[in-house]
Amino acid sequence: MRSLEGEQILVRVFIGESDKWHHQSLHMALLERLRRDGFAGATVTRAVAGFGAQSTIHTAQILRLSEDLPLIIEIVDSQAQIDRLKPILDEMLGGGLVTMEPVHVLQYRAEKKSG
Amino acid sequence: MRSLEGEQILVRVFIGESDKWHHQSLHMALLERLRRDGFAGATVTRAVAGFGAQSTIHTAQILRLSEDLPLIIEIVDSQAQIDRLKPILDEMLGGGLVTMEPVHVLQYRAEKKSG
Amino acid sequence: MRSLEGEQILVRVFIGESDKWHHQSLHMALLERLRRDGFAGATVTRAVAGFGAQSTIHTAQILRLSEDLPLIIEIVDSQAQIDRLKPILDEMLGGGLVTMEPVHVLQYRAEKKSG
Repeated sequence: MRSLEGEQILVRVFIGESDKWHHQSLHMALLERLRRDGFAGATVTRAVAGFGAQSTIHTAQILRLSEDLPLIIEIVDSQAQIDRLKPILDEMLGGGLVTMEPVHVLQYRAEKKSG
Repeated sequence: MRSLEGEQILVRVFIGESDKWHHQSLHMALLERLRRDGFAGATVTRAVAGFGAQSTIHTAQILRLSEDLPLIIEIVDSQAQIDRLKPILDEMLGGGLVTMEPVHVLQYRAEKKSG
Repeated sequence: MRSLEGEQILVRVFIGESDKWHHQSLHMALLERLRRDGFAGATVTRAVAGFGAQSTIHTAQILRLSEDLPLIIEIVDSQAQIDRLKPILDEMLGGGLVTMEPVHVLQYRAEKKSG
């Protein structure tokens, strides 16, 4: 496990739940790719409503069947890893919003402390 | 569709799921207003627990019936649009937390790339 | 209720839903502690998928029974309060990611405006 404490980058990717990558769901394909490529982590949250570049409002009420709610994928990693992330997003994403901002990482660890 | 790449603003609005605007749910009324007024997008996420200015802890367990869980509405747009957002929030919001921070937009587009 | 308008800090804590603190769920124990210690607020969101320092991908599909999905706890408060938050997180958290970034608070209030 790499150390990640200090100044890093938060990337947030807003896509649709029905977006596909080679017949797989895009967000799961992206998670697998990021894990395989050694990224520190990624977290996917499902929104309950939203609209974006296509200006259609999607809500959990009217879209329970079609399942095209917005998803937010958040990735915190070093500038060097984020530089590697950009071509991956360029390759895999269709539409969507991608934002980037600096964050200070206070803690990144897998294990419970003993004691 | 406007271009949004470059330095923009992320606004996050924390309200309650039961908040109302003229007998409609506040978050849906706000989404409709933002779309009508040409904002680039907005995404609504439902929290599972939280407390805020009123200091009552709301959780999905105890509030499944009353449905007053916190909602987070996220809006990414230009400084000029965010200047237009402030009076809208001032008009429509009762209680709640509103935060603002700069973000760098890497991508904002509706369509899948061909090829 | 304290005033919170102006430059403050956003802390985001990424933990697992099954993390415990003294036989209680960590996120609920943390919410209770923060409220008791006078923090301005905290909001807990449940992710639908993710991986982190342990590199195992958790998803809502395969983890509905074990319930170890990632949780994101967000806290916005003054630098002085965040300085008090750090030893609390150090005491209560095992594994997980903690990030910190400056935010501008536009509004923080409990009550609906009259009129």
